[in-house]
Amino acid sequence: MLDGPSTDYHILTASDVSAYLANHSTLAEHLGGLPSEWACRDVADGNLNSVFLIDGPDGGLCVKQALPYVRVAGESWPMDINRAFFEYSYTSRLEPFVGTLLPKIYHFDEVQFIIVMEKLEPHVILRKAMIEGIHHPRVPIDVAAFVAAASFYTSDLAAPFEVKCADQAIFSRNVALQRISVDLVFIDPYTSALRNVISERLVPWAAALRNDVDLKGAVARARIAYLTKAQSLIHGDLHTGSILATQDDTRIIDGEFAWIGPSGFDVGNFIAHYIMAWYAEPFHPAAPEPDRRFRDLVAADIVIFWQRFEAQFLGHWRAFKGEADGFPASHFGDAAASSRLETLRRAYVADIFSDALAFLACKIIRRILGFAQVADFLSIDDLEARSHAQAGALAFARSLLLYPERYRDIAAVVAALPRFENAGLFPTETRHL
Amino acid sequence: MLDGPSTDYHILTASDVSAYLANHSTLAEHLGGLPSEWACRDVADGNLNSVFLIDGPDGGLCVKQALPYVRVAGESWPMDINRAFFEYSYTSRLEPFVGTLLPKIYHFDEVQFIIVMEKLEPHVILRKAMIEGIHHPRVPIDVAAFVAAASFYTSDLAAPFEVKCADQAIFSRNVALQRISVDLVFIDPYTSALRNVISERLVPWAAALRNDVDLKGAVARARIAYLTKAQSLIHGDLHTGSILATQDDTRIIDGEFAWIGPSGFDVGNFIAHYIMAWYAEPFHPAAPEPDRRFRDLVAADIVIFWQRFEAQFLGHWRAFKGEADGFPASHFGDAAASSRLETLRRAYVADIFSDALAFLACKIIRRILGFAQVADFLSIDDLEARSHAQAGALAFARSLLLYPERYRDIAAVVAALPRFENAGLFPTETRHL
Repeated sequence: MLDGPSTDYHILTASDVSAYLANHSTLAEHLGGLPSEWACRDVADGNLNSVFLIDGPDGGLCVKQALPYVRVAGESWPMDINRAFFEYSYTSRLEPFVGTLLPKIYHFDEVQFIIVMEKLEPHVILRKAMIEGIHHPRVPIDVAAFVAAASFYTSDLAAPFEVKCADQAIFSRNVALQRISVDLVFIDPYTSALRNVISERLVPWAAALRNDVDLKGAVARARIAYLTKAQSLIHGDLHTGSILATQDDTRIIDGEFAWIGPSGFDVGNFIAHYIMAWYAEPFHPAAPEPDRRFRDLVAADIVIFWQRFEAQFLGHWRAFKGEADGFPASHFGDAAASSRLETLRRAYVADIFSDALAFLACKIIRRILGFAQVADFLSIDDLEARSHAQAGALAFARSLLLYPERYRDIAAVVAALPRFENAGLFPTETRHL
Repeated sequence: MLDGPSTDYHILTASDVSAYLANHSTLAEHLGGLPSEWACRDVADGNLNSVFLIDGPDGGLCVKQALPYVRVAGESWPMDINRAFFEYSYTSRLEPFVGTLLPKIYHFDEVQFIIVMEKLEPHVILRKAMIEGIHHPRVPIDVAAFVAAASFYTSDLAAPFEVKCADQAIFSRNVALQRISVDLVFIDPYTSALRNVISERLVPWAAALRNDVDLKGAVARARIAYLTKAQSLIHGDLHTGSILATQDDTRIIDGEFAWIGPSGFDVGNFIAHYIMAWYAEPFHPAAPEPDRRFRDLVAADIVIFWQRFEAQFLGHWRAFKGEADGFPASHFGDAAASSRLETLRRAYVADIFSDALAFLACKIIRRILGFAQVADFLSIDDLEARSHAQAGALAFARSLLLYPERYRDIAAVVAALPRFENAGLFPTETRHL
């Protein structure tokens, strides 16, 4: 239903980038000087796209081009090139609400499927920093602000429903990347899919989850919620590899998985990766934090993130004065109704929390028993240690899915982490936890 | 986001219809003979469109044209003409699953926004028949089959999610008619909207519902579900005026409100109109049914409808052998999981039931305290009697919204109907019912 690249489409190489930018005067002016003075680096880090950083005398730019295939796999794995359009659409849509938490886009080329955006420096990829034990205290605060604003302002709580429908007409065409999410997050880990990557020590865990009908029932509810709960525009891939940070600036990148879906998905995805970092931390080199173990900071950040998300989401809602169909002012304007509205708001956020827990469990499981694993664990060279760290995270994820009633608030979630730390490689023994 | 009519668009009149059909050879052949032998009648009955019936020597046709405004209101109320496209898309999409329960479409003209379809004769509009006390025993059976097939086969239970996304990309543009539904069903009745039509005797009821924060909270949940629960392709206006029937044939017409929404909406809408017929029945002329009061047949039909819907929905699901993302075979193939799947199926249908009860309550309220009222009540000339019939239905609807836990199954719903029959015009006295 979407066009592929035209015959005018060409894959950029590092040597072409300067010429491309020189042809666009505002971009060339941003860099300054002459093209011969520009330095270009190929920095592709994710799995999908080409990414170049270009520096000129006056400034830098980031050039991201979608390829008609998955970059790390090559032409044998074709991939919808329109993902560049969806990333551009996502960023444009959210810009009024999230300020500089998304990188500024200077140019979108719908023929070359190129996005030229702000070059972020000296930002680091959060995942790498977390593996090194470097704490970024702004991140949970900033990501909470980002997800709260995106979840509120693109929902039916903040606009006539026609606005969300216009978004749905766009993002419901983003099926190629959604197929990746649905398969890798919600289907493959519970099957013997060929692309699953399961370390030998975790085979009993993979088998236990594949044979656990209670668990697969809970995963089915989460999957159905992902497919049918059209609450707001979500990032869809908000893990620690999609966050660039300095000590006082945070940016969310890589919005190509954008989707109208449950608001709890981004919330759960972010927390999931902090939880995996928590389980991995004892096996990483000692962190340089002087006063406190890095994992305690990670646990505290999870609480901060949720509390800030909740407070800001509710804050946006309470402050909202516009027309919206979710809870129209004409129904909830008088004193009695506006007091009830506060109860309804809290119930709405509690529902996001409950969805988030199920999604975060699915995200942990897919990162350990599925195709695209995370460096938090893969960087642990001792395979026995790595499996133990992963087993702890798996045991926790399973408990979230089997016993959601035990996790009524974020404090209960974080307090439970140590209970699963030594779950070990024999999953049936710890199923009651 | 959608184009209006082009300069080539012309509003058909009864005298143009023959010339239009004569220009389309397959349609002319269907009628047979010469255009001079064709008889055309203007039979517009609904509020929105032009409808003509044309008879020729060999057969008849129904010609429906969308106007750029609401027919009964005239040009002062503009209305998206693309509703003809959405009705055509709805019918085409469902045809493989519902057989002849939808009228056959012979021709769609995307310039004139004309649908030429099967002429249904000697079918009557079900609402009129019900007011006259004429029972159509096939209707609940056929409508149940229709809604079950549409709800199952257009959901993520019966196809890869990309199929529903393609539907969403189409129907998420059908916002003009959704605006009518959202306003008239979920918003206006709980406000002092100018277009509400409230009989003087029901002013206390209108005030009571407007001031009932518990009720407005329940309506908000239903409204949010309508806006966010993208389960399947729904008709969106499945009342007894959208059903043409004979004693052995049933057709569902007027799919222009089509929408990807909660499967419980059509279920609840259909039942709501049977319930209103039940409350209205004592004030209609004596029914010709020899053995049983007509309202008892209506009550029995509600049970039949739900039971058939449930059985057929589950039946489609159990028989389904294709690929689908909701409950993939790779998760639920073995014996233990397939037994659990049956539990999950029942939970899915129970969720549709629970949604349906909230929607049906909203539908009853909007038909009594809102803009587009129904002949079931309006045909009761004695205004005191009419208000008492309406008050009973309102009291029942309120109870469904306030005390959903009392209505666990369809038997409980039907058994409760008499409890509200004499609720009367003082709503606070009966709020506990």
